[in-house]
Amino acid sequence: MVLVRLKGFEKLTNVDEALSIFFKALKPKRLGIQRILVDDALGRVTAEDTAAPVDLPSFDRSAVDGYAVRAEDTFAASQFKPKTLRFTQKNSVNRGQARQVWTGNPLPKGSDAVIMLEYTRTTRNQLQTLIAVTPGENVSKKSEDISEGEIVVRAGMRLQPYHIGFLAALGIIYVNVVEKPKVAILSTGNELVELGKKPRRNKIVNSNRFVIEGLCRELGAEPVYLGIAKDDEKDIGARILEGLEDADVVVTTGGTSVGVADLVPIVVNKMGKPGVVVHGVAVRPGMPTALGILKSKPIFVLSGNPVAAIVGFEVFARPTILRLQGIEHESRPVVKAQLAKRVAGVLGRRVYLRVKAFEKAGEFVAEPVHTKGSSLYSSMTRANGYVVIPEDREGLEKGETVHVHLFSSLAD
Amino acid sequence: MVLVRLKGFEKLTNVDEALSIFFKALKPKRLGIQRILVDDALGRVTAEDTAAPVDLPSFDRSAVDGYAVRAEDTFAASQFKPKTLRFTQKNSVNRGQARQVWTGNPLPKGSDAVIMLEYTRTTRNQLQTLIAVTPGENVSKKSEDISEGEIVVRAGMRLQPYHIGFLAALGIIYVNVVEKPKVAILSTGNELVELGKKPRRNKIVNSNRFVIEGLCRELGAEPVYLGIAKDDEKDIGARILEGLEDADVVVTTGGTSVGVADLVPIVVNKMGKPGVVVHGVAVRPGMPTALGILKSKPIFVLSGNPVAAIVGFEVFARPTILRLQGIEHESRPVVKAQLAKRVAGVLGRRVYLRVKAFEKAGEFVAEPVHTKGSSLYSSMTRANGYVVIPEDREGLEKGETVHVHLFSSLAD
Repeated sequence: MVLVRLKGFEKLTNVDEALSIFFKALKPKRLGIQRILVDDALGRVTAEDTAAPVDLPSFDRSAVDGYAVRAEDTFAASQFKPKTLRFTQKNSVNRGQARQVWTGNPLPKGSDAVIMLEYTRTTRNQLQTLIAVTPGENVSKKSEDISEGEIVVRAGMRLQPYHIGFLAALGIIYVNVVEKPKVAILSTGNELVELGKKPRRNKIVNSNRFVIEGLCRELGAEPVYLGIAKDDEKDIGARILEGLEDADVVVTTGGTSVGVADLVPIVVNKMGKPGVVVHGVAVRPGMPTALGILKSKPIFVLSGNPVAAIVGFEVFARPTILRLQGIEHESRPVVKAQLAKRVAGVLGRRVYLRVKAFEKAGEFVAEPVHTKGSSLYSSMTRANGYVVIPEDREGLEKGETVHVHLFSSLAD
Repeated sequence: MVLVRLKGFEKLTNVDEALSIFFKALKPKRLGIQRILVDDALGRVTAEDTAAPVDLPSFDRSAVDGYAVRAEDTFAASQFKPKTLRFTQKNSVNRGQARQVWTGNPLPKGSDAVIMLEYTRTTRNQLQTLIAVTPGENVSKKSEDISEGEIVVRAGMRLQPYHIGFLAALGIIYVNVVEKPKVAILSTGNELVELGKKPRRNKIVNSNRFVIEGLCRELGAEPVYLGIAKDDEKDIGARILEGLEDADVVVTTGGTSVGVADLVPIVVNKMGKPGVVVHGVAVRPGMPTALGILKSKPIFVLSGNPVAAIVGFEVFARPTILRLQGIEHESRPVVKAQLAKRVAGVLGRRVYLRVKAFEKAGEFVAEPVHTKGSSLYSSMTRANGYVVIPEDREGLEKGETVHVHLFSSLAD
């Protein structure tokens, strides 16, 4: 079949070029900075480098329960030839002495190692060590974890449980994080009704809203729902304006294709400069995606088909929302897997193929989820990741090694 | 060195055996079920299978903007030999007719395919199609996504954005989810002070609390902090009792080793039956971990060393908290990588080695994070995953293929 395009997109922009055009044109305002308790900081993104205010540990301390000693006093001790040391209660250990310490206790002056409890025998005032220890053994040295002034967490890090623990261990109570980006979400289409409204015949429940809200939350952004706009320029324009006033990002779904209903890009272009900077992307699904900028804020005009909207969000909105937070790189987990069967690509288009990845006899396998349309939720719920078929490939071969980008847990 | 054990654990239980003993002895009460709005269900775990109440789509609908036709009327049409059809405004399409439809519109009676707008030319009341379409082309068939009565989401699924969208698309407003398990967290140790209290000399900020809270939240559980108990049986016992009354799970840190300060397992055993079912696990770090059960509730007695506590939580508390929610399997993402250098293991112990995994020239590489102790937060913040060295291996070889379990995003 010869590709004829009498109407439609003059030219589809390839994904990398689209991203490059968009990021070059976008000069977003920096998000605000919030000072919050470390208790509340899980999953938030740091706004700046944080330096250690003190050494950790702040003193040489015992890493075990046992006896602090001078290591040289234990040399040559063994199970069969124990060495005998005298107990001291003082906070310093002299030659031939041992002092009991618990995990975390400061190392008494003069001692340089700790013998674990279980390698000793005790009498009333004598200790027999059944092993030799080397200087520093079972000791957490001052600043072994981090030195005063060193960076604990860099700017642009999403805080994990152990980051919070690290900050707390250093006595840090507050941390400066980036404000959650607000994402205004607009659904368009005369055919849509809100969930819970009695759906009349031929109407469709607006479900994209929930998908986009969820995807935003997963990135640490705060969704703001703008409702459903009719296929009407004024209605769409007014709501986008509302979104631009309140939010840092606007995402719309529906009204992106090239028919008469192709309203959202038209409206965005009428609202100001630069307006739409990309319309029509060489991607499948998600071809009619448009990328706009108004008031220095990004606008993602996504397809009304759920899967196409998800792909458009993944490819364009996701990296943008991460960048706004100062995160340069936060990839989905990737597994290398063998493709279970041949799949067709589309020359000149980047195809996002849903697959189910699982482990089989120690090997990872990616099984393409068969689906016709980009409107099927079941193609997502039966998959746990996607594989990218590059623009220059007619397809991927059975058994070929592919990268699976996981959006859910590996399957059994 | 000959391993001598005069005090200490009689015997270390290996990890798989410990899990088996523990799960056999644990007969947890089922968590309650909560009926919530799908709007609030992101990340929650389904309590039951949910069946589709209707077909989706509920009618044959157009998947594109274009013209609904009888496919046979278009056969043999081409760019060079277009076929001409007459427009109709009616809701049925007869031979030789075409009716304009937008994406999502119901397919008019009599039509069986849709020609995309861009492959047509129109005059006032005539349509020229430049391509042939096959029956079903560009049509979303009734129930193509799911049929009434089919399962949309199974019990024990953590709801992702596209699950929520799927449920909403089907008109489902409420979903039954498992109540969030409550996890009571107790920190023990005379050396500990709360974050924010002026730390006196030789004191340590209680940071484990924040780590365990974060790990719980990541699993969808609700942490309840019980404070710091002194190394005192009464204090520890009273707080564990408080935890057992209010929560579904108790996690303690500190006071697990075999010295005089080995209080928590002693207390748990005094509190009732079966008490401690495992004490001392052949794992590194985390050897002094104890697993207890009181009032049919699991008690995880973890090390006071942060990394050992994290490993103990990962190995024992994580699968338990998931099971309580009805999730049989929710693995961390796994990448296969080549180990960058040789690492030593410990025969008879399962070693959790922190590594930094990254992609280099298309290959994944796992670089061990060098660290002596299990007390160092920096060994976590410099890593993004762990590799398991099995009990029967003296070490892993440089270049060996290993599975990296990611706890954070892949590194650059």
